Amino acid sequence: MKDLYPSRKSQEVSIIPRKDPVIHAEKGQENHSSLSKEQLESYQQNGFLMLENFFSEAEVKQMSNEIYSLADDYKNTETPEVVREPTSDEIRSIFAVHENSSYFDKVAADKRILDIVNHLLGSEVYVNQSRINYKPGFTGKEFYWHSDFETWHVEDGMPRMRAVSVSIALSDNHTYNGPLMLIPGSHQHFISCVGEAPENHYKQSLKMQEFGVPDHDSMRWLANKYGISVPTGPAGSVLLFECNTMHGSNSNITPFGRNNLFMVYNSVKNRLVEPFSGADPRPEFIAARKKLPVLG
Amino acid sequence: MKDLYPSRKSQEVSIIPRKDPVIHAEKGQENHSSLSKEQLESYQQNGFLMLENFFSEAEVKQMSNEIYSLADDYKNTETPEVVREPTSDEIRSIFAVHENSSYFDKVAADKRILDIVNHLLGSEVYVNQSRINYKPGFTGKEFYWHSDFETWHVEDGMPRMRAVSVSIALSDNHTYNGPLMLIPGSHQHFISCVGEAPENHYKQSLKMQEFGVPDHDSMRWLANKYGISVPTGPAGSVLLFECNTMHGSNSNITPFGRNNLFMVYNSVKNRLVEPFSGADPRPEFIAARKKLPVLG
Repeated sequence: MKDLYPSRKSQEVSIIPRKDPVIHAEKGQENHSSLSKEQLESYQQNGFLMLENFFSEAEVKQMSNEIYSLADDYKNTETPEVVREPTSDEIRSIFAVHENSSYFDKVAADKRILDIVNHLLGSEVYVNQSRINYKPGFTGKEFYWHSDFETWHVEDGMPRMRAVSVSIALSDNHTYNGPLMLIPGSHQHFISCVGEAPENHYKQSLKMQEFGVPDHDSMRWLANKYGISVPTGPAGSVLLFECNTMHGSNSNITPFGRNNLFMVYNSVKNRLVEPFSGADPRPEFIAARKKLPVLG
Repeated sequence: MKDLYPSRKSQEVSIIPRKDPVIHAEKGQENHSSLSKEQLESYQQNGFLMLENFFSEAEVKQMSNEIYSLADDYKNTETPEVVREPTSDEIRSIFAVHENSSYFDKVAADKRILDIVNHLLGSEVYVNQSRINYKPGFTGKEFYWHSDFETWHVEDGMPRMRAVSVSIALSDNHTYNGPLMLIPGSHQHFISCVGEAPENHYKQSLKMQEFGVPDHDSMRWLANKYGISVPTGPAGSVLLFECNTMHGSNSNITPFGRNNLFMVYNSVKNRLVEPFSGADPRPEFIAARKKLPVLG
């Protein structure tokens, strides 16, 4: 399959214009969505959309209970799906929760969510990745700028930009507790990252550039062109963001942690192929390529 | 001299109520300030005050030129006043700029600033510390919660809470580029930090607690009681904050760096004594105890 979005293959930085629609709904279906026309336009233009109070207080409470009870279930378990703090046994993330918890399987198939993502992706969908993030207060670290699609394309073999992330906030997101920052409009540009240099070339290079992350000049260009958005909202809010939207987060020294449930929906017409890096695929719990129950 | 605010001397955390006024203006002078009644009340209640557009665009431009030219002057100089990046020669901070630059000496004596700080401190004042901070984009690290007074008291021998910091923004402060976060009202409480434990005690301690920083429970108590404020504003804004106001900042992965000029004014009635830690005083360029030109 032709690589439409090459990255980490060259020593040159390049910016490739998006070659895919943002909203994939079929002709004639453009306005048949549970989202309003304004919401669809905002997603189209910005590459993300915040839906405040999407889940009720009671639902948030139940989800919060379930994520703590899941952490409890995994307490003494060693499994790759569970990622712990480097310096303690505290759980940071649990992957594949839609497979290993009947409760979160139901959440992943929530009709209100599916109505939206079916429309945005213009097809039936499946869950490419799901995880719970337990972000602690005081010690939460920054997460550098990235486009998820760049990673999913290079490392997982996702062919096209036809996936959407759904992040359900299970605690309040303020501007100060390390919230997600997004660059509105960045989804229209694929920032091709530089690849690992042969040793000689690396030594010759005047300017050090990290491998596999967007370069400073491209980030400056994006941020100056589009600015930076920091959507905030109470627990129960849902943030939809397009797979190529550039995002990252600063650290969090406040006492206020942030838990969220994160699910990536991919179009059944965009199933994973061999990774474009040529390397072995990452494990199934990070990127689904075998078990693909279609969610309608 | 009796230690009214003991810290780092015990293995117990404690919260000591403030024993000093917030605004020290003499009786009858309370309303004789260039600040409005509302501004004074806000400073009294919150422990900080943001003054937007305090300096004109032309003044900001000149200050910015001066800070870059000062960095240039120090380019190949090894002196303790100049703090560089751990991994490069880039300058992070230059201390004692009011002594080593006639330009910044004039800024420190700016009548508009002195009118305010003289009133807040109820006396003549001197510059206890001055520095320029060059905070880069992309790699700016977090600065954990602290009360400056706790450090100045323990390490520098500042007897009472009668000092004020003036931070002049030389670039725009947004919510997302690692701005200062403050806990409004925290200046009313002295969070006494735990001291370095004897090795045995440390091993017995169930809960690890870092030495000389506020503990998590006190920080949770403060943040839940008072919330967190993030004053933002364009270059040229001035932030006044009381020496005991709890503050810190998250990291900054955005391309937008933050430069500021930071000056600490202390009351001439609050001159430094021997450090309350019993250790040797820190160097003169961090805490003035010899050269104390009174600024009126």
